[in-house]
Amino acid sequence: MSEREEFMGVFDDLVEDVVKLLSKITDVTEEASNYIKEMMKYNVPNGKLNRGLTVVSTYLGIYPKATKEEKRKAQILGWCVEWLQAFLLVADDIMDQSLTRRGQPCWYRKVGSKALNDGFTLENCIYQLLDLHFGSLKCYPRLFKIFIDVSFKTELGQTLDLSSVDENDKPIYSKFSKEFYFNIVRLKTAHYSFYLPVALGVILGLDSLNKLDQLDSVLEEVLPCLIKMGEIFQVQDDYLDVYADPETLGKIGTDIQDGKCSWPFVTALEIANEEQKENLFKNYAKNDPQCIKKVKEIFKELKITELFLAYEEKIFNEITEMINSIQSIDQQILNYLKSKIFKRKK
Amino acid sequence: MSEREEFMGVFDDLVEDVVKLLSKITDVTEEASNYIKEMMKYNVPNGKLNRGLTVVSTYLGIYPKATKEEKRKAQILGWCVEWLQAFLLVADDIMDQSLTRRGQPCWYRKVGSKALNDGFTLENCIYQLLDLHFGSLKCYPRLFKIFIDVSFKTELGQTLDLSSVDENDKPIYSKFSKEFYFNIVRLKTAHYSFYLPVALGVILGLDSLNKLDQLDSVLEEVLPCLIKMGEIFQVQDDYLDVYADPETLGKIGTDIQDGKCSWPFVTALEIANEEQKENLFKNYAKNDPQCIKKVKEIFKELKITELFLAYEEKIFNEITEMINSIQSIDQQILNYLKSKIFKRKK
Repeated sequence: MSEREEFMGVFDDLVEDVVKLLSKITDVTEEASNYIKEMMKYNVPNGKLNRGLTVVSTYLGIYPKATKEEKRKAQILGWCVEWLQAFLLVADDIMDQSLTRRGQPCWYRKVGSKALNDGFTLENCIYQLLDLHFGSLKCYPRLFKIFIDVSFKTELGQTLDLSSVDENDKPIYSKFSKEFYFNIVRLKTAHYSFYLPVALGVILGLDSLNKLDQLDSVLEEVLPCLIKMGEIFQVQDDYLDVYADPETLGKIGTDIQDGKCSWPFVTALEIANEEQKENLFKNYAKNDPQCIKKVKEIFKELKITELFLAYEEKIFNEITEMINSIQSIDQQILNYLKSKIFKRKK
Repeated sequence: MSEREEFMGVFDDLVEDVVKLLSKITDVTEEASNYIKEMMKYNVPNGKLNRGLTVVSTYLGIYPKATKEEKRKAQILGWCVEWLQAFLLVADDIMDQSLTRRGQPCWYRKVGSKALNDGFTLENCIYQLLDLHFGSLKCYPRLFKIFIDVSFKTELGQTLDLSSVDENDKPIYSKFSKEFYFNIVRLKTAHYSFYLPVALGVILGLDSLNKLDQLDSVLEEVLPCLIKMGEIFQVQDDYLDVYADPETLGKIGTDIQDGKCSWPFVTALEIANEEQKENLFKNYAKNDPQCIKKVKEIFKELKITELFLAYEEKIFNEITEMINSIQSIDQQILNYLKSKIFKRKK
């Protein structure tokens, strides 16, 4: 059985944990409980599960002699990250008025404004599951604190992101800059997608090793490298949105017509001459094939592809150097994560 | 200085606490920090503050010899309930598409879909403030656990409530019943409005007295009485929505035209004859003065006012009996709360 299959096998048990919790709360009807069960099945498990699996691989990297039961704890913790991801996506899709997610209609399009409350329920389940499965462990306060803090950063990143559009959802170009772009990326993506899964694996691993006293120094050492991975991950995402083959990517990119503060666009703004800039402003954020074509032409003139490839190369070299200097945990843990995103095409 | 004024005096310091936390997070811009500050000032402090003040009065009832510094802790905890309330109201107003709240436009009408993310931020602030001010206390795990659990119940109550309308927001009358109504009321209102503030005062008070070992038995004893208060509070709310003088109430009730699963309506359904029922179904949930008038006429035929007054009397007698049998804490604490809602006219 692959790691992924084994991981998936834990999901149904966690759904049953939640259902059992609900059955203990007087006043919750069976119908409401069934609704929440279906809601979780629709929103939690259908992604790539990279974040959840990273918790497991990190844990095993720190504590290779884990028993099956111990590994299961790491899998449960991995699922808590997937529950967080589900909450964030349900909410983001409402705010962005998105249409599809993971190959199915966005949840709010199935249930309407109920989806908002379902998002809160998904978030709360994280803490219910943490309490149920980790409440008696020494590392428990650290686990819930990191979920709270990383959620806070993600929400602040969303605040920053949303501050760059006006009340009609039109981009405010005066705010767009590389610095602003990376502020958003680090807060909104890097912490929860890269730092959180590794940090959770480290916390649980050090607990198993009875070495929680080393926790702060380990986390401090790995943080910058993981944030850097989060940055390049999002830069790749933005690049692929414009340039990837839709077949390979599994979706058709819409960042140009949506007017997103994305890496190709902020890079272009930095180096464009006055005429190119004017044309970018005129054609960006317009849902018109001619406008999209014009933006892509300017990107070509500005050699965005070449700049991306050079930038990707440079950042991966920096990440490699950062990993090579890590002393507190096995470098393989981070190399594994790097290999997953290195020159990715989807 | 009144308790309320003293309580208000703590608010600005807590806003500054959050701003200081934000200033420590790299990547959060000053503009984003200012936005969050204004968002908190708009949404947190403009209510009646009953929940927050109940935390303080309960704490002082348990631990009358509190120093000024100790009392301040209870005030901070009271504000955490007000932050929770702000989160719930911002989210509810989006889901209900409400227009005004506490005499000002609902937040989502000021900032659009950003409001959703602001709701999450308000919720997260509870846990940031708890960690900051109570992290070193023995009762800390109990404090955050009760916030998580009560939030869960409130969200489940909202799930239940929203399950009684179809995809066009039309009421599904087959689900309306007294039992269903009280399931919703207990989950959605009673736990966070009555149980939570008292429970928090008890937790902090027993911590101050170094008697946390008594916590579970105290909470178990006071829970039923507080849930009962929450029930009658909501029944009053529903009654006043239809019958109160709008001048006194401070708002114009819209439950009839909104088709709410409210106490007068579910009571009417229980006792109406077939013709009255048919007329209720025909005229309820319609934004038309003639329909509203017809519903009120049927309510009058069914003596809803008399039934309400008798019911209110009966429940307050039950509450009085319940309070009189309380042994683990000073009965005055609960009598104070009872007096605040006894035969209230607004």
